[in-house]
Amino acid sequence: MNDIATYFRDHRDAHLEELVSFLRIPSISTDEQHKHDIEHAAEFVGDALRAAGLENVRRYETGGHPLVYGEWLGAKGAPTVLIYGHYDVQPPDPLELWITPPFEPTVREGRIFARGAADDKGQVFIHVKAVEAFLKTRGSLPVNVKFIIEGEEEVGSTHLADFVRKNRKLLSCDVILISDTHMMGVKTPSITYGLRGLTYLEVTVTAAKTDMHSGTFGGGVANPIQVLAEILVGCKDPKTGKVRIPGFYDDVVPLSKKERAELAKIPHNDREWAKSIGAVKPFGEKGYTTIERTGARPTFEVNGIWGGHTGPGVKTVLPAQAHAKVSMRLVANQDPSKIAKLFAQHVKKIAPDTVRTEIKLYDNNGYPALTPIDSPGMRAAADAIKMVYGKAPFFTREGGSIPVVADFQQLLKVDAVLLGFGLPDDNLHAPNEKLDLIQFEKGLETVAAFFERYAEMSR
Amino acid sequence: MNDIATYFRDHRDAHLEELVSFLRIPSISTDEQHKHDIEHAAEFVGDALRAAGLENVRRYETGGHPLVYGEWLGAKGAPTVLIYGHYDVQPPDPLELWITPPFEPTVREGRIFARGAADDKGQVFIHVKAVEAFLKTRGSLPVNVKFIIEGEEEVGSTHLADFVRKNRKLLSCDVILISDTHMMGVKTPSITYGLRGLTYLEVTVTAAKTDMHSGTFGGGVANPIQVLAEILVGCKDPKTGKVRIPGFYDDVVPLSKKERAELAKIPHNDREWAKSIGAVKPFGEKGYTTIERTGARPTFEVNGIWGGHTGPGVKTVLPAQAHAKVSMRLVANQDPSKIAKLFAQHVKKIAPDTVRTEIKLYDNNGYPALTPIDSPGMRAAADAIKMVYGKAPFFTREGGSIPVVADFQQLLKVDAVLLGFGLPDDNLHAPNEKLDLIQFEKGLETVAAFFERYAEMSR
Repeated sequence: MNDIATYFRDHRDAHLEELVSFLRIPSISTDEQHKHDIEHAAEFVGDALRAAGLENVRRYETGGHPLVYGEWLGAKGAPTVLIYGHYDVQPPDPLELWITPPFEPTVREGRIFARGAADDKGQVFIHVKAVEAFLKTRGSLPVNVKFIIEGEEEVGSTHLADFVRKNRKLLSCDVILISDTHMMGVKTPSITYGLRGLTYLEVTVTAAKTDMHSGTFGGGVANPIQVLAEILVGCKDPKTGKVRIPGFYDDVVPLSKKERAELAKIPHNDREWAKSIGAVKPFGEKGYTTIERTGARPTFEVNGIWGGHTGPGVKTVLPAQAHAKVSMRLVANQDPSKIAKLFAQHVKKIAPDTVRTEIKLYDNNGYPALTPIDSPGMRAAADAIKMVYGKAPFFTREGGSIPVVADFQQLLKVDAVLLGFGLPDDNLHAPNEKLDLIQFEKGLETVAAFFERYAEMSR
Repeated sequence: MNDIATYFRDHRDAHLEELVSFLRIPSISTDEQHKHDIEHAAEFVGDALRAAGLENVRRYETGGHPLVYGEWLGAKGAPTVLIYGHYDVQPPDPLELWITPPFEPTVREGRIFARGAADDKGQVFIHVKAVEAFLKTRGSLPVNVKFIIEGEEEVGSTHLADFVRKNRKLLSCDVILISDTHMMGVKTPSITYGLRGLTYLEVTVTAAKTDMHSGTFGGGVANPIQVLAEILVGCKDPKTGKVRIPGFYDDVVPLSKKERAELAKIPHNDREWAKSIGAVKPFGEKGYTTIERTGARPTFEVNGIWGGHTGPGVKTVLPAQAHAKVSMRLVANQDPSKIAKLFAQHVKKIAPDTVRTEIKLYDNNGYPALTPIDSPGMRAAADAIKMVYGKAPFFTREGGSIPVVADFQQLLKVDAVLLGFGLPDDNLHAPNEKLDLIQFEKGLETVAAFFERYAEMSR
């Protein structure tokens, strides 16, 4: 690997300069006014892939922002790695909180500050340059690679799943490699092997046709807020923290002994964790640790509630309606649609016959994702990290959801490796987003090492 | 009574004209801009009392709007009736919904439309003119009377209790007569013998110092909305509708057999009642009828709830706080302060140790009021109604609260008779407030008959 490491070292300044050019493009996908910048960013990615030595580089129209594709398939008999990332970024507001402007990338104390530095331009760039290093130095890669870089991640990857569905052959591969997450720290490298899914619903309880006087009618008719409270309690056990929806846990892949051992290695202190969020103490499903509860177990959470008089002072109203937004974070192999249905059935069953209930399903649901920690891709990634960082990575499961990961896995029937080089303090979606340059450099080496290890394992 | 009836008949037009003058004054107590009109209305009341033949008519300054007092104490050995009412009115908004302007009293189809027609100027006027009829016709009344007419009822009777406390001797009496409520109908006359009290509080549940991401933290820490739901369910039994706060029912005066029999006479159909408010069916405390539940039994109601994301769409937030406004309607002899304390203790007890709870007591609490239906005042009022309306009244308990009634009762240690001549469709606090002129006329006769019957009973 000396030749590859040398290439990275020799091109450090050039790479940084190129990355700065990429980060200068305000490719904000949520804002129609930046359509031209989106085009510009897509073009930049295509040019970078071509310059790296990739073949069949082209853009695909999606109906929204274009996808950029590129491949190098010269490693006969070797496995194929599909690299996914995105060139679009979040809006930079509030602008006044940025120390240096979001689209004027600036290096301070070994970090590059700019919108998109970590999410996800900087990480996409790592892959491009890792591939380039092999092709420029050796003329070949140990594995076949395909890039699919989208421009709609920050608007929910609107057209990606459909594209994948229609282009399974083009995207066929042995493993998907994604660098769009973070690791725990430079000295505590980690790999994410699971993501939670999500289903999000709204419940409305109607007790009467209009708000009523609580003196005149109070005591004689169901209070919709009270009934909503009963429904919520009927969905989660106050003592055990278990979700009470029948069938909710049926499809959950249980945590293996090995996984629990890996998760237990993650440095964590309940008291400090609670203190950091200003909580009295942790609370969650009985029989699981906080790490497991927030990453590896499904949840039922109320995200919002409203009804009756919510302004200042006193209003003696007996409201007609009450509403709650609830969501359930899901783990493999729970199916969001099935869980949503079980929830709706349960609510209908436990709601008293004194009210009407209505359940609205929001359509931005997502499947959970799980890549076994002993799968070839995971082992190759862990080995690569160990080589570059000098220590074995922690295996983590993220509590949040990245629906495209599950979409890829389900449609292409392969594992996804989430090899993120961001750090927890990268200010994603916030002012002063940054990428640590040490992580950029280690990222290049880790991805290069991954290609080699993954090829070796497949021999 | 023929002379009195004749007086009413002969002065019908003159009375109506005077009432119109009274109703023309926009004595809106909530609005500083109407200070002059308040003064004007107080003066009008004083003049009317003087003209009626009352003595010692004077105004008392309160720190707010003035009280007007007048008396006639010439009935040696006879009991004293204290008449309470108010000359201030609610604001008239929304103006555009009035068919004729709120302060241009207009008679249509036997009703006089104006702000204050029923609440309470028209009803105050009934008492003034009933007294006048006796004094002008006979030169005396069968009872002693004292008037105390305030100008702050619509702003919570801010200074009244304090005035009563400091002037117990001035206001000493045998019974308090108040016409500031309504009866069921012209053909179904009724007397209110009980009012509910009220205590109103706000509960805040805090689980963390800021809102959190429901993916990253969900499942690991208490959800304040979920905990608030648990607290609400812990305060009222979903099955029996009983309030679960220990000690809540301890001081409740049980409904007597006679009362339940009286309440059962009131025409009521559960299905129609539910239909009228758009409810599927009634719901309330097990073992009681809807009439009892809404008037004669205490309640626990959530008046408002809010927390987390309450706007449109999806936000995967795990909120830091949740809030609810709750109130309890109380019946004799529950003490609002004691009940508020019991509630606060109960919440602290049932809330899990994973959150902080905070309870705020609003200061507009009120004691319940109850006047036994076989007390002399009640019997006199019932007889008077029977004489004038030709049928015995229904005895009702109102679910709402009129705190001054309890204040008077507690401070003066006498019963209050709520002899209301309004009707349920009088549009109180709403556009097109009105008073039926038939009720105005029957009111005059009923009050006159009450004076006679009450005097007879005390002999």
